[in-house]
Amino acid sequence: MSLISLFEPQSIAVVGASKTEGKIGYEAMKSVHEFDGDVHPVNPSADGTLFGEPFVGSVTEVEGGVDLGLLCVPGPVVPSVLEEFGAADVGAAVIYSGGFAESGAEGEALQDRIVEVANRHGISLLGPNTSGFLVPGSGLYASFAAGVQDVRPGNVAVVAQSGGVAHACAFEAAREGRGLAAMVGLGNRANVGFEAVIDYFDRHEDTDAIVLHIEGTDDARSLLETCREVDTPVLAYKVGKADVGEFAKSHTGALTGEHALYEAGFHQYGVPTVESTTQLLDAGHALATAPTPAGANVGVVTAQAGPGIIIADRLKQAGARLPSLSAETRARLDKLLSGITYSANPVDTGRPMPEFGEVVTAVAEDENVDVVLVYELHEAALGFPTDALDGLAETVDKPVLFSTAGPESLMADDLAALEAIGVPTYTSPERGADAASILVGYADLGGQGATVEVTVDE
Amino acid sequence: MSLISLFEPQSIAVVGASKTEGKIGYEAMKSVHEFDGDVHPVNPSADGTLFGEPFVGSVTEVEGGVDLGLLCVPGPVVPSVLEEFGAADVGAAVIYSGGFAESGAEGEALQDRIVEVANRHGISLLGPNTSGFLVPGSGLYASFAAGVQDVRPGNVAVVAQSGGVAHACAFEAAREGRGLAAMVGLGNRANVGFEAVIDYFDRHEDTDAIVLHIEGTDDARSLLETCREVDTPVLAYKVGKADVGEFAKSHTGALTGEHALYEAGFHQYGVPTVESTTQLLDAGHALATAPTPAGANVGVVTAQAGPGIIIADRLKQAGARLPSLSAETRARLDKLLSGITYSANPVDTGRPMPEFGEVVTAVAEDENVDVVLVYELHEAALGFPTDALDGLAETVDKPVLFSTAGPESLMADDLAALEAIGVPTYTSPERGADAASILVGYADLGGQGATVEVTVDE
Repeated sequence: MSLISLFEPQSIAVVGASKTEGKIGYEAMKSVHEFDGDVHPVNPSADGTLFGEPFVGSVTEVEGGVDLGLLCVPGPVVPSVLEEFGAADVGAAVIYSGGFAESGAEGEALQDRIVEVANRHGISLLGPNTSGFLVPGSGLYASFAAGVQDVRPGNVAVVAQSGGVAHACAFEAAREGRGLAAMVGLGNRANVGFEAVIDYFDRHEDTDAIVLHIEGTDDARSLLETCREVDTPVLAYKVGKADVGEFAKSHTGALTGEHALYEAGFHQYGVPTVESTTQLLDAGHALATAPTPAGANVGVVTAQAGPGIIIADRLKQAGARLPSLSAETRARLDKLLSGITYSANPVDTGRPMPEFGEVVTAVAEDENVDVVLVYELHEAALGFPTDALDGLAETVDKPVLFSTAGPESLMADDLAALEAIGVPTYTSPERGADAASILVGYADLGGQGATVEVTVDE
Repeated sequence: MSLISLFEPQSIAVVGASKTEGKIGYEAMKSVHEFDGDVHPVNPSADGTLFGEPFVGSVTEVEGGVDLGLLCVPGPVVPSVLEEFGAADVGAAVIYSGGFAESGAEGEALQDRIVEVANRHGISLLGPNTSGFLVPGSGLYASFAAGVQDVRPGNVAVVAQSGGVAHACAFEAAREGRGLAAMVGLGNRANVGFEAVIDYFDRHEDTDAIVLHIEGTDDARSLLETCREVDTPVLAYKVGKADVGEFAKSHTGALTGEHALYEAGFHQYGVPTVESTTQLLDAGHALATAPTPAGANVGVVTAQAGPGIIIADRLKQAGARLPSLSAETRARLDKLLSGITYSANPVDTGRPMPEFGEVVTAVAEDENVDVVLVYELHEAALGFPTDALDGLAETVDKPVLFSTAGPESLMADDLAALEAIGVPTYTSPERGADAASILVGYADLGGQGATVEVTVDE
């Protein structure tokens, strides 16, 4: 089933659009009304306009047709609305309401019914039981959550089983000053699942990494195979290590399944797994922005020893290697850092210094190093070594990550300047170390595109 | 040795004060010059004024004397400056420079010398090899890092072995909109170590929790006993789980020591340990702000299932218990949430709702619950249940933590309102869960003030 109608609509209908603030039919219309295409509020019992758009009674009345319908109606009404969609040749629907497979036998029957109707008419269903999706680069905000316009365009696609987690990730990305290529909350996955959405965003021009939140799925193998087949790097956050099965089933109608088997499966198929939304977003940002590392050797440069120790500790715990630097690099560093405390790996300059960028460059150019992780507390008089880092990752074809802390009042512009030249930044030593560790994991696993030997019992 | 001169000076001298921006002697003066007491730039080869204060040639020339000297001079000069301090009856010194015990035999000898001088004159030494300290509530910014005034007054004291980590924590707290009661970078701990500083901040009126960053110390037992003896809750972040010993020794002259023994020791002495600066600050904020929990039973209320599953998963992994709610609570919830998806623990309201505050109150009042953790994506039309939460933690005498995500543009004021009524807030599901888990750990360990049976082999 093609997802063009869902993610690239020309015309959108908001079914159940409402003038009452706080209602989903109002909030969804508010989010989507600035979309650069036709947006039609649909409500047979309303008249006048909503956000400047005239109400219509049904999608069948829309001249030129509708590609995507956002359903802000109670669950039991959904089947009849989908029949109308079939009549009007609407290609896709987002179903916000709950009361389907996540809520017992009656809901399961209702979900079966909407799948039957949708499949008969060739309608792609996002949901039910989702808060929607965003494609910020297309100005498409198909969510009923207020303020989603804070999420700006970026190059990571978040594909989450839970709409709530999708939104939590989107707002966290925005808070970090990053955009997203897309945010998708799958919900109950009535007839659009992980596979189709991953496949779509693999072909999506703006998407350079796909990050997944997974509670459980009936066909893990199919998900894993999709992850391996796509060219875009994929990361996975599988929740449910502890026993939360009953609660999870009541959520999106999925069993959390055997956590360890999922983790092993992802690793076998070349997909690194992470332990939090923050790691998912931080590492996704690095995978999408920086070159893919060729190996697991991390060169650490720090301007302060204490955070450097935290980073080295955390990297080693995660299985990254901190190799000795080459004789050539050590000779370069000896010149730059004469008399300074420690020039092994981590290279510790003791304090920020004018030559800090040259130190980072020397380590990045070392043949023993696959990933560069820098830590530097912001020092206003020096700023960050933006000039030295500009183009460095591309030149050496290695990821160069930058971890820091500093006063927001003095640091914000310098941090934005690093991001603007494609250097992923992190505001704690552990976050930088975790992102680097996950890149290392990606290299170690061969990436999900690599042709590793895979043996999974059927 | 009293630390009154160090942390409560009336008069401060900046020795090696300089007019050259970027030099430590300039930056330290810039940080400290607005202190509400006398501040004297000291430099025998400078004249005129610095930040409006006239230069003097030596601390011995300062009429009325000096309590605290900030030494912005190279290591080899420190002994003679300390002799002058002795002559002028200066009670405390911060030594920013390195080249002491962290850098080989010569440095060790120099450190021995300054300790001898300082002890002979009764001078408390912070450092050497530190970037200083802050007591924001007293307007005292004794650090050479630019922008430290971003760190506002608060109720957590950060005591870090590394000045770099101390500053990373301070800036991270500021970035989260929280203040600090104090930030102390101990550095080489020449004659002021963890024990004296912990003891001081235990008596410090503004400090409600003390959080430690530890690389290693020669006398772990003494540190542990201090942690147990104080009344203020203490948390510890012990780094060095992996082998980073050589690098750490080159840092603050300390061995990282046996990580597992430290962890076991802290737990035996009632001090929960954490795994990152973020956990240290997040849990410290909760310990300082919320009532101390009586047990390990967490009641979770969530407005979105997906983040609720993440929270339940993470809490269980950390050893927290999610008890069944009492029959009375379930009856209250049934009324509030009729027909809603899941009302066990976690209680899932499906969406934010006007009754959300009542739901939280019902769970908080449940006799089976010791810690309440709430998750709610911000919904602009409803805001957060600030009225219901105001005073709730005090009434039930349990911590109530609030975890959320949302658009910064719409959420910032509502988040600040929660913090203003003493509800600790966290901007990811995992961060809220980690803070709650560490509170649970504190309860499980009996708190460091509890009279648990302790057996440590000498």
